[in-house]
Amino acid sequence: MEHREIEEILMRQRTTQTNPLPSWNEGSSKRSILHFVEVVTSADGADFVPPLDRIAVIDNDGTLWSEKPFYFQLAFALDRVKVLAAQHPEWQEQQPFKAVLEDDIDGLLAMGTNAIIEILFATHGGSTSDEFEQSVLDWVASARHPRTGRLYTEMVYQPMLELLDFLRVNGFRTYIASGGGIEFMRAWVEGVYGIPPEQVIGSSIETKFEMRDSGPALVRIPKVVFVDDGEGKPVGIHKFIGRRPILAFGNSDGDHQMLQWTEAGDGPRFMGLVHHTDAEREWAYDRESAIGRLDKALDEARVKGWTVVDMKRDWRVVFPWEGK
Amino acid sequence: MEHREIEEILMRQRTTQTNPLPSWNEGSSKRSILHFVEVVTSADGADFVPPLDRIAVIDNDGTLWSEKPFYFQLAFALDRVKVLAAQHPEWQEQQPFKAVLEDDIDGLLAMGTNAIIEILFATHGGSTSDEFEQSVLDWVASARHPRTGRLYTEMVYQPMLELLDFLRVNGFRTYIASGGGIEFMRAWVEGVYGIPPEQVIGSSIETKFEMRDSGPALVRIPKVVFVDDGEGKPVGIHKFIGRRPILAFGNSDGDHQMLQWTEAGDGPRFMGLVHHTDAEREWAYDRESAIGRLDKALDEARVKGWTVVDMKRDWRVVFPWEGK
Repeated sequence: MEHREIEEILMRQRTTQTNPLPSWNEGSSKRSILHFVEVVTSADGADFVPPLDRIAVIDNDGTLWSEKPFYFQLAFALDRVKVLAAQHPEWQEQQPFKAVLEDDIDGLLAMGTNAIIEILFATHGGSTSDEFEQSVLDWVASARHPRTGRLYTEMVYQPMLELLDFLRVNGFRTYIASGGGIEFMRAWVEGVYGIPPEQVIGSSIETKFEMRDSGPALVRIPKVVFVDDGEGKPVGIHKFIGRRPILAFGNSDGDHQMLQWTEAGDGPRFMGLVHHTDAEREWAYDRESAIGRLDKALDEARVKGWTVVDMKRDWRVVFPWEGK
Repeated sequence: MEHREIEEILMRQRTTQTNPLPSWNEGSSKRSILHFVEVVTSADGADFVPPLDRIAVIDNDGTLWSEKPFYFQLAFALDRVKVLAAQHPEWQEQQPFKAVLEDDIDGLLAMGTNAIIEILFATHGGSTSDEFEQSVLDWVASARHPRTGRLYTEMVYQPMLELLDFLRVNGFRTYIASGGGIEFMRAWVEGVYGIPPEQVIGSSIETKFEMRDSGPALVRIPKVVFVDDGEGKPVGIHKFIGRRPILAFGNSDGDHQMLQWTEAGDGPRFMGLVHHTDAEREWAYDRESAIGRLDKALDEARVKGWTVVDMKRDWRVVFPWEGK
């Protein structure tokens, strides 16, 4: 496709968006986003960035959807234990599965990280990629959040959905860079965020090709091959995209290195953090939270002048269903 | 961007391409390509495929450029040993480096696979990603093929360049799926094939994030983490794209599983092999070749009716410089 034609379409789309980011209150966060996008898309400006280099990387848990009381992918795994228990009668008496089947979440968490990993492996490995995708689709279509009673895919942030749209209308390609499982996310993010599977970067277990009687299959092996978190995020971004992003958005110290890597490139850069400050509409947590801890990255953001979104102050609406 | 608008642009581009594959002789190979593209792009046909699903995966060595007398990436590694030897005086007396420095390629190959791996690790690891990219760019700008005296990036197949263009004009996204190193390819394939870095899938060594005094860096560690060959190809394609391709092109048994995986999807499918049959203009080899062996995949192609391109018969021109 001709670049000129792409630019013309983008320009037409831009001018029809009279009020981008309607769920963002006026203030420094919204201004910094609008200013950055204006600067990199102004064809005659010194800081113009061609569309192919307008790469945005955005964390998922706590940045695009909620992550409390614990990562939603863990909720999927716990529900999945109950589905798979019919094929595993031994789980009735075997930890950590017994705790899950008895809804003893505190007991499970007290067993430590290895118990969680055992649950994740038992529920994420063994199936083919197609079977796993279907199990995720079944879950997101029916499972509900314990506090709000909403589908998990409704627990997404309306202002961030608007940001994704706004970036794409301005010629950005929006990537997810998340510590979550890549195949867990790919099953549903296209429908929910408009992000296609090839623009999802995440953690992964091993996959093996097998020629079966029914034909070739990709089988998921319970062995971690990549953790897309912390120092893994710039590594994953480089592996999948091979270009340095010009915009990164996260919410925790797991996003710190991704933000540093983004900042270190030439030309205009945008580094953003969602700060969970709204205990009433969502949750309030930062330095002391076991999930989504935001401590070192918050300090660096303050020193460097990165955009720290104060959820309570900056977001007129948090979830899409509010006010409806 | 609106899908309708993309389709309109694509249609305008298609109608201006009156003779899409000029370096292909008339015959069954060219006909099968034209027929497949016609079928999947006919909006009213039963086999229409939406642009987002028009994924093409194409091998590199022996499919887009030559691979004789040995993989060009090995030529890069051997040349790189000579550049790095200044920092490694011990290599003058230490095998396998000594053989390389003395241009004793037969002696090197006689040392076996581990010697080659040692050369690859010594030349591909240790640097940052930026430094490595620069070393590849320096090499492709100056190194010349031992037989033709051409730059390696001139040893690309004109008919396949035309195929890449033809596919893209028809709304396909063209991916490379190669056993070669992902960062080795990414340095130059955008300029040569028009394939951007995020559409390159290849083998990789480990990369680590480091915060240095000069800022964050990605450092290449000499440890193989993924081999994108044979059964690894469908795994790599699934990992990077998350969709099954509808077209795959290769030239060796290393592409066999990629072709099987592509074929096993629903709807119209195109599986192609470049058969090296032209000892005069390029090379002739298949079942007995150590590099680019084509044996089992050729048998299956014949049984299944995949498109086997006979280089001598089907290609009017092999390299872009011919007849100029």
